[in-house]
Amino acid sequence: MKLQILGCYAATPRTMTNPTSQVLEVRNHMFLIDCGEGTQVQLRKHKMKFSRINHIFISHLHGDHFFGLPGLVSTFRLLGRDKELHIYGPKGIKEAITLLLKLGDSWTNYQLYFHELTSKEPEVIFENDKVTVETIRLSHRVYTNGFLFKEKLGERKLNAEAVEKYKIDKAYFQNIKNGRDVALDDGTIISNSELSFDPPAPKSYAYCSDTGYKPDIVYQIKNATALYHESTFLESEAHLAVKTKHSTAKQAAAIAKAANVGILILGHYSTRYKSIELFKEEALEIFPNVELADDGKFFEF
Amino acid sequence: MKLQILGCYAATPRTMTNPTSQVLEVRNHMFLIDCGEGTQVQLRKHKMKFSRINHIFISHLHGDHFFGLPGLVSTFRLLGRDKELHIYGPKGIKEAITLLLKLGDSWTNYQLYFHELTSKEPEVIFENDKVTVETIRLSHRVYTNGFLFKEKLGERKLNAEAVEKYKIDKAYFQNIKNGRDVALDDGTIISNSELSFDPPAPKSYAYCSDTGYKPDIVYQIKNATALYHESTFLESEAHLAVKTKHSTAKQAAAIAKAANVGILILGHYSTRYKSIELFKEEALEIFPNVELADDGKFFEF
Repeated sequence: MKLQILGCYAATPRTMTNPTSQVLEVRNHMFLIDCGEGTQVQLRKHKMKFSRINHIFISHLHGDHFFGLPGLVSTFRLLGRDKELHIYGPKGIKEAITLLLKLGDSWTNYQLYFHELTSKEPEVIFENDKVTVETIRLSHRVYTNGFLFKEKLGERKLNAEAVEKYKIDKAYFQNIKNGRDVALDDGTIISNSELSFDPPAPKSYAYCSDTGYKPDIVYQIKNATALYHESTFLESEAHLAVKTKHSTAKQAAAIAKAANVGILILGHYSTRYKSIELFKEEALEIFPNVELADDGKFFEF
Repeated sequence: MKLQILGCYAATPRTMTNPTSQVLEVRNHMFLIDCGEGTQVQLRKHKMKFSRINHIFISHLHGDHFFGLPGLVSTFRLLGRDKELHIYGPKGIKEAITLLLKLGDSWTNYQLYFHELTSKEPEVIFENDKVTVETIRLSHRVYTNGFLFKEKLGERKLNAEAVEKYKIDKAYFQNIKNGRDVALDDGTIISNSELSFDPPAPKSYAYCSDTGYKPDIVYQIKNATALYHESTFLESEAHLAVKTKHSTAKQAAAIAKAANVGILILGHYSTRYKSIELFKEEALEIFPNVELADDGKFFEF
């Protein structure tokens, strides 16, 4: 999985910091997650191909996660897009984008599908042969979902030596990858475990922004390869985190620890602090594997 | 008058070019004209004080003139604004901004006034003791207004020498500035023209973007100090200008010449051309005083 951070700061876009947006690539499939103002410029800056984005997930309808979407939808049209575009987000997103297109008499010349979310329980909202995406119910001032991207279990890997040893015909290879045993001409059954190796463990990425401290998400994101969890504040401003339904770095780390994730990526920083390193220091007291998101930063896991 | 260009390129924001927005300062009063995506970042970059912006004029509801407005309105709230904000633009602008605020449950804590425009004739939409703003009816794919900012005639200037010579009491100074004659104690009438000088000629700025070639605006912008006129295309793409209801640099120059303006400022360039100097070269064939707008450029006239 490859994760390109386009923006990861709270509230308003500034000269050097962008509001939330990131691109996740899973087995060559690209997902855009949130779309703050200026996302399309960030996409260009980091040389992401617009045409590879077919699925956009919006966590909630606050401007810093959403106000770049009308412009991106319009730009797709100007670029001559003809492929379908799917947008997943809270109810109301269709009305908003449709109204803006109507006012500008600027209808898209590609099919635009809205998948409006209202469920109070996690649900699978996207699935293809390689990936599923499910919502993570978060707790914020408006209806907000995180997203859990899970690879499906891949095919088993052929054990080339064993296949050679038993002189098994190519015609059986796909069966072996699918986990089947093979019967030789003399009737001997060779067990699949002798002919193949386990596929790589499926990876998963949990995106959780914006949310107050919400330990009940732990069961769902258990053992995720990577967790992006917002940390708008430090513990010194825990009262503001409660008031605004955001999290502190320490709370994000507590979630990471309880969920036993591989790596915790922090983001959605308030710009009140003099350095984002402070967030990492605070989280490291609770959880050992912490990284800081930053605009333009790239992760592979 | 001081004009700060924040963005002046057509269509979509890019890494190095911004969609349309500019700030005009007239006698210490600041007006924001159009508000493409990223305008708030450009305002910060050029160190414009957010609190000085109280009146925003939106020419039309295409994204490249308008999609920065929701974010700016939200940012004003985050900055703790309490002063009124007035937004002038085509009918529909109120519904759009209101819907976006509602979806984010992010109502402003300052008074937000919408002045929706529908008139097919020019009309005065703002007036204070120093400036009037009237619409210029343009011809584009959607309902579009340009804006004409006109200084009012100021007070006459006191002729210090003459006032000294006739030993006129201070109490009469404001009357003199207002154009009145003065009667001396012996009954002699001193004419105002002897006691004061004409005030500076009022300046005016005409903003015309986006529009097809529309010579009937000439009467209204006659003798303007400065004219910003869009030139999306060069004459070589005149057919595209007609099709998309934009202008060529040559057409912008023809308007400037017919209106006898002081200076023509070109902008709203298509990014298909290798240099914006080409626009200036084309316009200079028709009109002698041409400047190129560019992001970050500052004009004083």
